[in-house]
Order: sequence, then C-alpha cells, then structure tokens
Amino acid sequence: MLTPTQLSQLIEQEITQLDLKGKPDNLYQPMRYIVSLGGKRTRPQLVVLGCELFTDNVQPALPAAMAVECFHNFTLLHDDIMDIAPLRRGNPTVHEKWNTNIAILSGDALFVKAIQLLMQVPNTTLIQCLTVFNATALHVCEGQQLDMNFETQATVSIPQYINMIRLKTAVLLGASLKIGAYIGGAVEEDAEALYKFGEYLGIAFQLQDDILDVYGNPETFGKQVGGDILANKKTYLLLKSLQVAHKYQLEVLQQWTQTIDYNPTEKIKAITEIYDYLNVRKLAEAEMEMYYTKALQCLATIPVSQERKHSLQQLAAQLMLRTQ
Amino acid sequence: MLTPTQLSQLIEQEITQLDLKGKPDNLYQPMRYIVSLGGKRTRPQLVVLGCELFTDNVQPALPAAMAVECFHNFTLLHDDIMDIAPLRRGNPTVHEKWNTNIAILSGDALFVKAIQLLMQVPNTTLIQCLTVFNATALHVCEGQQLDMNFETQATVSIPQYINMIRLKTAVLLGASLKIGAYIGGAVEEDAEALYKFGEYLGIAFQLQDDILDVYGNPETFGKQVGGDILANKKTYLLLKSLQVAHKYQLEVLQQWTQTIDYNPTEKIKAITEIYDYLNVRKLAEAEMEMYYTKALQCLATIPVSQERKHSLQQLAAQLMLRTQ
Repeated sequence: MLTPTQLSQLIEQEITQLDLKGKPDNLYQPMRYIVSLGGKRTRPQLVVLGCELFTDNVQPALPAAMAVECFHNFTLLHDDIMDIAPLRRGNPTVHEKWNTNIAILSGDALFVKAIQLLMQVPNTTLIQCLTVFNATALHVCEGQQLDMNFETQATVSIPQYINMIRLKTAVLLGASLKIGAYIGGAVEEDAEALYKFGEYLGIAFQLQDDILDVYGNPETFGKQVGGDILANKKTYLLLKSLQVAHKYQLEVLQQWTQTIDYNPTEKIKAITEIYDYLNVRKLAEAEMEMYYTKALQCLATIPVSQERKHSLQQLAAQLMLRTQ
Repeated sequence: MLTPTQLSQLIEQEITQLDLKGKPDNLYQPMRYIVSLGGKRTRPQLVVLGCELFTDNVQPALPAAMAVECFHNFTLLHDDIMDIAPLRRGNPTVHEKWNTNIAILSGDALFVKAIQLLMQVPNTTLIQCLTVFNATALHVCEGQQLDMNFETQATVSIPQYINMIRLKTAVLLGASLKIGAYIGGAVEEDAEALYKFGEYLGIAFQLQDDILDVYGNPETFGKQVGGDILANKKTYLLLKSLQVAHKYQLEVLQQWTQTIDYNPTEKIKAITEIYDYLNVRKLAEAEMEMYYTKALQCLATIPVSQERKHSLQQLAAQLMLRTQ
C-alpha cells in the first residue's frame, strides 16, 4: 500500500510526464499551464486509491488518474471564463493570460485529451469507465449551469442547493473512485458503493468549503475570508439563514445583499453576526457530518480488509479537517 | 442502396428522435436549438455512406452519424462565440439568443452527448471509432486555433493555409467516412483510403467555399458575396494573389486591407478586379480539381463494386457543383 507521500509523488510524477505537446503552441501551452498550477490533486489520488482498494497493482490506474485531472482542469478553464475570475491558485487565469477564445479552445482540447487518456484503461473496463465518465461530465455541466442560474434565481431551496453541489463537485469524486475501482477489478456493487462514498464525501467537502469561507483562518485559508458573503453567493449558510431567520434578521440580510455601495469589512461582520445569532454554522456542520457519516457507511459495506480501507479513510478525514 | 432522398430522410428522422432532453432547461434547450437549425447534414450522411460502401445494413451506423452531427454542432457553438457571429443559418446564434456562458456550457454538454452516441457503435468497432474520433476532435481544435492565429499573422503560406483547412474542416469529413467504414466491417486499409477520400474532398470543398465567396451567385449563395474580402480573411484567393502579384497589385491589395473606412461595394469590386487580373480563380479551381481528383483516386482503390461507390461519387460531385 502506498503512503500518502508516495501517492502524492506518484501523481506528481505522472503529471510531469503528461504529454500535452502539440501545435499550434498557443493551443497546447495553456493546457500545460493550467495543469502545472498545482492543487491538491484529490481526484487523481482518488482514482489510484479506488484501484488500490482491490489490488496492489495501481499502475493501470495512472492514465485514468491523469484523465480525471485533465477533465477537472478543463472545467476550471471554462468555469473561470464564466466567473470572470482573474486568478486561479494565485496565478492569472488562462483567459487573462491569453484570451477568452484561447481559454475556450484549449479547454475543449484538454477535454479531448482526457478521453484519450481514459481510453488507456485495460480494455475489459473501457466501456464501464467511459460510461461513468460521460455521465459524470454531463452532470458537471448541469451543476455548473444550475450554479449560474442560482445567481439570479429569487429563491433556492436547501435540497436544490445540495443537488447543485452534488452535480457540480461531488459526482466527479465519486466517478474518480469508481473508475479506479473498475480498473482494480471491483464488481459493480462495490464500485457503486465507492461511487456513493465519493459523492457523499464531495457534498460534505463542499459544505465544509461554505463554512471555511466564513469561519476559516485568514492566515491558512487560500481565498479571501468572506468572499462568498461579498459576492452574495447562495451558500448553505445563507440559504439556511434565510430559512430560519425571523423578520428582523431577514430584513438585515436582504438589506445587505441588496446594497451595492458598502464597506466590505462591515458587510462581512454584519452577516457573520447573523449567522452566529442563528447558529447556522452548527447546522451546516451537522449537515456536513451527516454526509460524511453516510460516506463512511458506504465504504463500510465494501467487503475488503480494514487495512485496505485505511488510506481512503485517512484522505477523507484529511479533507474534512482541512483549513484551506 | 439508399437513394439521396431516402438517405436525407433517414438522417432527418434520426435527428428528430435525438434525445437532448435534460435539466436545467437552459443547458439542454440551446443544444436542441442549434441541432434543429438544419444544414446539409453532410457529415452524418458520410457516416451512413461510409458504412453502406461495405454493407446494406446501415442501421448500426445511425448513432455514430448522430455523434458526428452533435460534434459538428458543438464546434459551431464555440466557433460562433469566437467569431462573434450574430447569425447561424439565418437564425440568432446561441450566444446571442441566450448568452456566452450558456453557449460555452451547452457546447461542452453537446460534445459529451456526441461521445455517448458514439459509444453506441457495435462493441467490436468501439476502440477504432473512438480513436479516430478523438484524434479528429483534437485536429479540429488545432485547425480553429490556426485559423484565429492567421487573422493576426503577417504572412501565411499556401501550404500553411491548406493545412489549416485540412484540420479545421476536412479531417471531420474523413473521420465520418472512416467511422462508417469501421461499422460496415471495412478492413483498416480500406477505412483509411476512405478517410483520405474525405480529407481530400474536404479540402476541395473548402477551396470551393473560398471561390463561392467571391464568385457565387448572390441569389443562391447563402452568405454575403464578398464577405471574406470585407473581413480581410486570408483565403486561398487572397494568399495566391499576394504570391503572384506584381508591385502595383500588391500595393493596391495592401491599401485595401489596411483601410478601415471604405465603401464595401468598392472594396469588393477593387479586390475582385485584382483577382480577375491575376487569374487566381482559375488557380484556385485547378487546386480544387487537384484535390477532388486525389479524393476520387483514393475511392477508386477500395475493392468494392462500382455500384456501391455510386452514392459517394454522387455526393462528392454535388458538393463540388454546389452554389451555396
């Protein structure tokens, strides 16, 4: 079994060896650029760990691990255009460094590269892997569109929100694990249980993200604390507050979200005070814990030794305890 | 064997039955919209005819025919954003009717749909079909990037131009035929000959497009005659003119392409006069004929009866004789 450090090194080594060369240069260079910006590489790690749950031979899972990482980076390229994001992991986004057309097109090409990499899985698992990959790719598009729709939608229910983060974020974690499981020789039932593990974990992970945006340590949190508040983003905390607030807090929330000219620090402070008063952090943490527990229950149903499950449990715990 | 009318009806029927339903609506509706705008449906027809060259049973080729049509429409969605095109087949483009973000995302989703459809080919041909499809998808991205690069590139050689139209347009015709051939049971050698037939035909087709832009009948030509001239597009006619022009014509060409404030009719007239003087229409037609002949030579090498080849020859001739 790989240690976390060995796993991390294995993935980084594969990324270094990734063949993203081609002509014209301004199509392929942005692909190499976005992939080289780093990140936690959670998805490719999940492919390898999904495989390692069933076999010690994880080599056949490496191209698929690179496939999901390329796919993830393709979604980042296009999402950053849609969000007009100037920075990605502290560096200029592709549409800023080059231009929007190049970001669209190198994103498209990176998606094709992802499928080409996925086709390197063992032939016996090709149809299974491609099937879950395609369904997931469509879900991710649906989730991104829902996320954009929510920006202008008057009301969003908590179940609608959970469904959106499930599609936008969680299913790709599930798919990464399931693809790894197929390559490792898992039967459908176990591969599906692992998918659900990833999906629930992904929802918990995203709820954690919502909490960290408000309550994260400014010194270790990668993004601006309160960024979601300033952007009026309909996070779990805001939606829950709107649900449980009384008339007075509702008015304050609405006032702040409708005011265009404000002092950012004051807005963050005022809305955080309402969150504190309504105790939505606790409610969000309870929801997060619920999905985390569900995830672990799915993992528990898979009939392999506890020893084999250790790495996945460790990674899951780490994702939940993260501060960035 | 299908008559041209039967083939056309078969394709339209499949398009009507195409499952592009899903939620959210503003992700899936643009996908249905772009596909419903029509067009000649050349690519799906080529898939079916590629199959029919080797077998009478073309049913298994229909999902793949839809796959290439969806892929083609995905490229139109993204190309129209990059070209800031207001109209597509006389109707508002998706980024105009909805917005750019929706056009990016529904394009991405349409690409995924294309792969899902392609996965419905008979299992024995899946890897072959996906391999040629992915390689082609990457080439189409490369071709589009080269086309954009040429807009600002000081000089473009004729071989560079031919390579660009090969990648942007021709390879997808080749791939459509090759995928059909695989499904029809062709051996690699014949499938590859058919690919080359499509590739050469595609180059001839695009050269024809360049000629029609200047010399097309305004009453039957779908686009504005002289549109490429007004846009300073580096077509075969312009590049050839720049190559063969003497000092005086070079100066006139450069003057017109550098002037921002001009009378459109005058510009078209002046540049067309230079084309006429330099006889580049004839040179372009000769180049087109050369590729058309090469295409037919590739088709000739395939060891099936003349009767079986008739439909493809007919379609090829029709593409060359088109006025729109």
